Amino acid sequence: MRDLLQYLPVVADFPRPGIAFRDICPLLADAAAFDQALASMEELVQHWQVDRIAGIESRGLIFAAALAARMHLGLVPIRKPGKLPPQTLRENYALEYGQDGLEVQHAAFQAADQVLLVDDVIATGGTLLAAARLVQRLGARVAGVVSVLEIRALDGRARLEAAGLEVRTVLRD
Amino acid sequence: MRDLLQYLPVVADFPRPGIAFRDICPLLADAAAFDQALASMEELVQHWQVDRIAGIESRGLIFAAALAARMHLGLVPIRKPGKLPPQTLRENYALEYGQDGLEVQHAAFQAADQVLLVDDVIATGGTLLAAARLVQRLGARVAGVVSVLEIRALDGRARLEAAGLEVRTVLRD
Repeated sequence: MRDLLQYLPVVADFPRPGIAFRDICPLLADAAAFDQALASMEELVQHWQVDRIAGIESRGLIFAAALAARMHLGLVPIRKPGKLPPQTLRENYALEYGQDGLEVQHAAFQAADQVLLVDDVIATGGTLLAAARLVQRLGARVAGVVSVLEIRALDGRARLEAAGLEVRTVLRD
Repeated sequence: MRDLLQYLPVVADFPRPGIAFRDICPLLADAAAFDQALASMEELVQHWQVDRIAGIESRGLIFAAALAARMHLGLVPIRKPGKLPPQTLRENYALEYGQDGLEVQHAAFQAADQVLLVDDVIATGGTLLAAARLVQRLGARVAGVVSVLEIRALDGRARLEAAGLEVRTVLRD
């Protein structure tokens, strides 16, 4: 078993000064490390009932697509505004400065679908909370949230659990 | 076997007037259709020697990630400028009006890697040609190009084959 944290190096001051960016590319590029990360994610959610996987653009969508292929489930992309053809539903969320949004197609889920939300890194949890609201506004249910890495200092887990979401992550830092 | 073209509806005038957009979401969302598309892609490339898979942002990366998971291979994201942390290599390509670019990390490939390039739709082939140049500039080789759909009227296959690239697609329209 590899120490997967070593495949997620921190890049200082990217994309802006003061930001410590986690580069997921070394993990993706290594077949054994990528496979191990996906196997761990699958194992973490094995007791949840999951009908469909939703991934958050852009890096969450990479892991969501890979996990959907492994688990033979359908995939729903949750994307930045303007990328998905109509009809779409939008949810805004706060950033450190200003706000951003996410969109999903109205037809994405069937009523009562149990949806697994996938992202690469859980930071403040703001993006995942917006994604969860999109799922719920369409009448589906969030089976839980899974990510590769959780940044403990930013306390995203507490915000997600306070909203009633179950959270599993492969790595914590 | 499903008729996969029915899962790729054309959306008129999206994202701009005059553009006929292929929506891949219905295919992704249907577990059996998504699985069938991935199985077909895997079968189309089974006689190629492939060491690594590269996917083009954003929709190509979805299929590339899923295929990498199925085939237990490493994945290299080829992304829009400014998204990947340094050091990156850039290649520009012409659009109908103006130009755009793609970037890949210097460390993405090992010398002599045989790289499978994945995109969702082959239109004019311009994006895939730029991606192929990035692979080649880093000393790797393009094992071939695979996509879900080829738009015959836009003749991307001819441009790619003229550049010495092998092309396989699940569907033609």
